[in-house]
Amino acid sequence: MAIVVQKFGGTSVANAEKIRRAADRAIASSKQGNQVVVVASARGKQTDELVADAIEINPNPPKREMDMLLSTGEQQTVSLFAMACYALGQKAISFTGSQIQMITDDAHTKARIQNIGTDRIKKKLDEGFIVIVAGFQGVDEEGNITTLGRGGSDTSAVALAAALGADTCEIYTDVDGIYSTDPRKYPKAVKMKQISYDEMLELASLGAGVMHGRSIEFGKKYNVKIHVRSSLHDEPGTLITHEVAKMEGILVSGATIHKDLAKIGMIGVDNRPGNAARIFTHLAKAKVSVNDIIQTEVSSEKANISFTVSKSDLDSARQAIEDIQETVHCQNVFVREDVAEVSIVGVGMRSHYGVADRMFQALADAAVNIDSITTSEIRISCLVDLDHSDAALTAICDAFQLDKPADKRT
Amino acid sequence: MAIVVQKFGGTSVANAEKIRRAADRAIASSKQGNQVVVVASARGKQTDELVADAIEINPNPPKREMDMLLSTGEQQTVSLFAMACYALGQKAISFTGSQIQMITDDAHTKARIQNIGTDRIKKKLDEGFIVIVAGFQGVDEEGNITTLGRGGSDTSAVALAAALGADTCEIYTDVDGIYSTDPRKYPKAVKMKQISYDEMLELASLGAGVMHGRSIEFGKKYNVKIHVRSSLHDEPGTLITHEVAKMEGILVSGATIHKDLAKIGMIGVDNRPGNAARIFTHLAKAKVSVNDIIQTEVSSEKANISFTVSKSDLDSARQAIEDIQETVHCQNVFVREDVAEVSIVGVGMRSHYGVADRMFQALADAAVNIDSITTSEIRISCLVDLDHSDAALTAICDAFQLDKPADKRT
Repeated sequence: MAIVVQKFGGTSVANAEKIRRAADRAIASSKQGNQVVVVASARGKQTDELVADAIEINPNPPKREMDMLLSTGEQQTVSLFAMACYALGQKAISFTGSQIQMITDDAHTKARIQNIGTDRIKKKLDEGFIVIVAGFQGVDEEGNITTLGRGGSDTSAVALAAALGADTCEIYTDVDGIYSTDPRKYPKAVKMKQISYDEMLELASLGAGVMHGRSIEFGKKYNVKIHVRSSLHDEPGTLITHEVAKMEGILVSGATIHKDLAKIGMIGVDNRPGNAARIFTHLAKAKVSVNDIIQTEVSSEKANISFTVSKSDLDSARQAIEDIQETVHCQNVFVREDVAEVSIVGVGMRSHYGVADRMFQALADAAVNIDSITTSEIRISCLVDLDHSDAALTAICDAFQLDKPADKRT
Repeated sequence: MAIVVQKFGGTSVANAEKIRRAADRAIASSKQGNQVVVVASARGKQTDELVADAIEINPNPPKREMDMLLSTGEQQTVSLFAMACYALGQKAISFTGSQIQMITDDAHTKARIQNIGTDRIKKKLDEGFIVIVAGFQGVDEEGNITTLGRGGSDTSAVALAAALGADTCEIYTDVDGIYSTDPRKYPKAVKMKQISYDEMLELASLGAGVMHGRSIEFGKKYNVKIHVRSSLHDEPGTLITHEVAKMEGILVSGATIHKDLAKIGMIGVDNRPGNAARIFTHLAKAKVSVNDIIQTEVSSEKANISFTVSKSDLDSARQAIEDIQETVHCQNVFVREDVAEVSIVGVGMRSHYGVADRMFQALADAAVNIDSITTSEIRISCLVDLDHSDAALTAICDAFQLDKPADKRT
């Protein structure tokens, strides 16, 4: 019998009616002959409400207690989900992270999964129960409750699917699947039938949302077939999987735009070993998350270093750079806030020429100036003027025919 | 160092301000040199809200899942309580019933405590933490979350006090302590300085509220000094303890009235061995909780049996009696709903004559007719007309001088 893991996010279990609908879906899969494990998030805005309760009492609440508090949200959902299954005539049992031994490290509020017990789940599946597991939470070796941080329930679901050797991990959400680009920005965007883990990782890290990067990494590592689909209808969504044969012809799978960015440039840094390390270690200590880095040699003595950060990190980054400026003999620092990054992502571009050309030509034709360029094996990103960034995205999408299904592109 | 257990009920932790005040109290006790263990209930009406959430999804929710759901209320309180302690500069740690191994049987929604782990609590107390334990909840041997039923947090607190060998178990509530009778019924009622477990048990079973009978039984069994006191001020409340020397002179400690009653009379039941057992086994199967039973022999062949039940159980009781009526050859059944029970409770009456006389005389002087009388070692109860029951209570209270402190009565 195939095991299917179904994950329902907060909006899909926000009230009694939605929980009932989600339970219906789990029962349907069970009736099709699958053993069904459900992973559920806290209802609607409940986590936000609990955070507000905590802040009212202590503006800087200890993280262990925060995890203790927040984990109740998922616990409530799973018990209600089990009740909904019984109301629909299906036996079900709910478990906390602790009860199934979802063992994590002790990094409260952003714990990492170390091991998952599967005996109890498998026993209950074999007895005909739908098993409902609280997402987002685990337990450290001392029995303290931990939580997995942003996107934690996705990670719980994919990790459980891996541990159980599940056939598929279905992620139910309020969108239809993964699109070639954000449909709000490019209305002609099409839903992708499938996408590789690597591409999805690039899209997630570029802010395309839908799924958190850590769950994709988990899926890639343990080869879990992830199906992102709508909780509102039965149409298939997007399958995230390893690269498959028929993908090979496709050069570019998707495009993204990322506006929450600022660029910091450091001009005339002493071109000595260790200076880059000094700068970025210092930024890391200031808890600034640095995106794309470009270093160019100006002369044998001097180099320019630039990088992008989230706008929310800009003040901390500016302060950190000011502190280190003299140490690395940086002559000048500038900041640009009026930038955005447009990117194309595709496994196909690895082995094909002409992809970068086509992107740059599209931008040139749209009269968009390129500030800087960074690339990975499966991604090309251009920093452009914020004012021109929407036009830039449209130009790229048109150039790579992202309005057509993947197999119809030329 | 003395260990003190402090229990805060739902009204004492209903919001951030109240949680802060309760935390203040725990910290004050800690600063006086005590090791403090707090047991807390769910905030305000939260349990009611969770029950409503459940009923909306499943009018007959499975009990295991109900326990899973309801236990989150206390878990939220204890984590918020710990945060409040930190905000006030005191380190603290919260635990679920599962985390401290509050082991119960598997009777979900009304589980009984079997064993309590104390190692983890003692370790944290020795490290200088205030330890905050979720009341009302435990865990069975398989790790399923259980709850202890009505008044469960009191039971958690007293049981923890027993297991830890605590000096006192303080029960914080919104009343000042235990009164000689309900002050709303008899405004001259006085707060008792102390009362014995047995008396408190009789008062609890007669509906005097404040504390649930099971926690008192626990206190009696393990000799836990229980201090019922107000969470609003620092005045001492009432100490529940074993009988003490200075109690001996006191005949009657308190009086109660119980109006939620109906009397069922079975006339002319065959006076054969086993008939009473048949009737009450049948009622137990129908989940009717029977109060005082009176059986009188009418002749060598026939007996009359009467008993009282809660008004909420009356329909089930009536149905059950109808089913069994022929089997026991009962000639006639009557029901009285217009009755109430007034009782006096006191360890002193065991060894004193004249107590019953005084009660009956007081009722006669007040022109209250007595329907029937039942007694235990430390209690005398009279069933009277509902219309006359308030007057009956006043008459009894006056007769036994319940408006005076216990040591001033004659």
